[in-house]
Amino acid sequence: MRVSELASESGVAVATIKYYLREGLLAPGAATSSTGASYTEEHLRRLRVIRALTGSAGLSVHRTREILAIIDSPQPDLYDTLGRAVAALPPYPDPELHTDHPRARAVLERLGQLYDPGYAAVAQLEDALRAAEEAGVAIDDERIDVYGTHLRAIAEFDVARMPQGAPSSSIEYAVLGTALYEPIILALRRLAHQDVAARTLG
Amino acid sequence: MRVSELASESGVAVATIKYYLREGLLAPGAATSSTGASYTEEHLRRLRVIRALTGSAGLSVHRTREILAIIDSPQPDLYDTLGRAVAALPPYPDPELHTDHPRARAVLERLGQLYDPGYAAVAQLEDALRAAEEAGVAIDDERIDVYGTHLRAIAEFDVARMPQGAPSSSIEYAVLGTALYEPIILALRRLAHQDVAARTLG
Repeated sequence: MRVSELASESGVAVATIKYYLREGLLAPGAATSSTGASYTEEHLRRLRVIRALTGSAGLSVHRTREILAIIDSPQPDLYDTLGRAVAALPPYPDPELHTDHPRARAVLERLGQLYDPGYAAVAQLEDALRAAEEAGVAIDDERIDVYGTHLRAIAEFDVARMPQGAPSSSIEYAVLGTALYEPIILALRRLAHQDVAARTLG
Repeated sequence: MRVSELASESGVAVATIKYYLREGLLAPGAATSSTGASYTEEHLRRLRVIRALTGSAGLSVHRTREILAIIDSPQPDLYDTLGRAVAALPPYPDPELHTDHPRARAVLERLGQLYDPGYAAVAQLEDALRAAEEAGVAIDDERIDVYGTHLRAIAEFDVARMPQGAPSSSIEYAVLGTALYEPIILALRRLAHQDVAARTLG
């Protein structure tokens, strides 16, 4: 398809597509003349990923390029590659502040979960637990168990649904399932609060 | 206690406390001399809430003042007041974009949940569902059911733990439980993915 068709199919303006081409986020199309090029379904698919990352997830072009590079050149260890791809999504804990993660380690050990201490989400959990503690609403064991159990059930579903086959598909799924489903999860929890409150507070 | 003690107890610098006093976020202490004032445990508690909202949750002073006003002057209808307080937290869906919420309504009807169509979280859910759809990873019925079931279980626990008695305590709990526990929930899901992946891919 031509760039104008790619634009109408994707809903992304031609000028924006050209910007992504210049920034190297989108691969050039096959040249069809001195000024024209032809684009494929693969370009359309990539454009959707770029839009999701730069739009909803609010990533910079730099961070988006980093994630696309991981999708395009996955390392042999899929587990490690998935971790690096998701860690390229916000929030970005300040590495200077993190030499140890006592609160996060205690929670993960209580839940009996395997974890890589260097993984960004461990620092992210530590920051979040510290903030709750400082506000006087530290998370207690009962809450850890309830949250941990139900979030692990959600994670089991997510991982079971991960496409098998090409590693790039698995990584793309993990990145989009983090960037795009996290806002859905938070909205659903707020709405579930409303439902429960409506039934109990009358 | 004196302002210096309030600072050391709370970990908030004296200059920052004075800024909160000037902005009207913190009530003045009882005057003890022409220049000194005395602060109570109530000030310390309020300071923790202000820190949580302006720090971790990243709220502006304006939004923080709005939430504190709701906590301090709850309306007779607690259910409605809770909804307004949580809606003052980010994200802030653009009201111009929202006249209808077809995707959010379909999900909430599928889950059989009571909801107020004007509640900010409905618009938040609609935005999140549309973003996933546009990225080619629309949420399907099976995922709605899994996410919905487990997030409702979390919400039931949250509401059961809500302090009874003074409405201001309930509202403060809802605000802090949203602003401070949401990052914990997202970090726990990412870490549960890692645990499940380690056991299945490892």
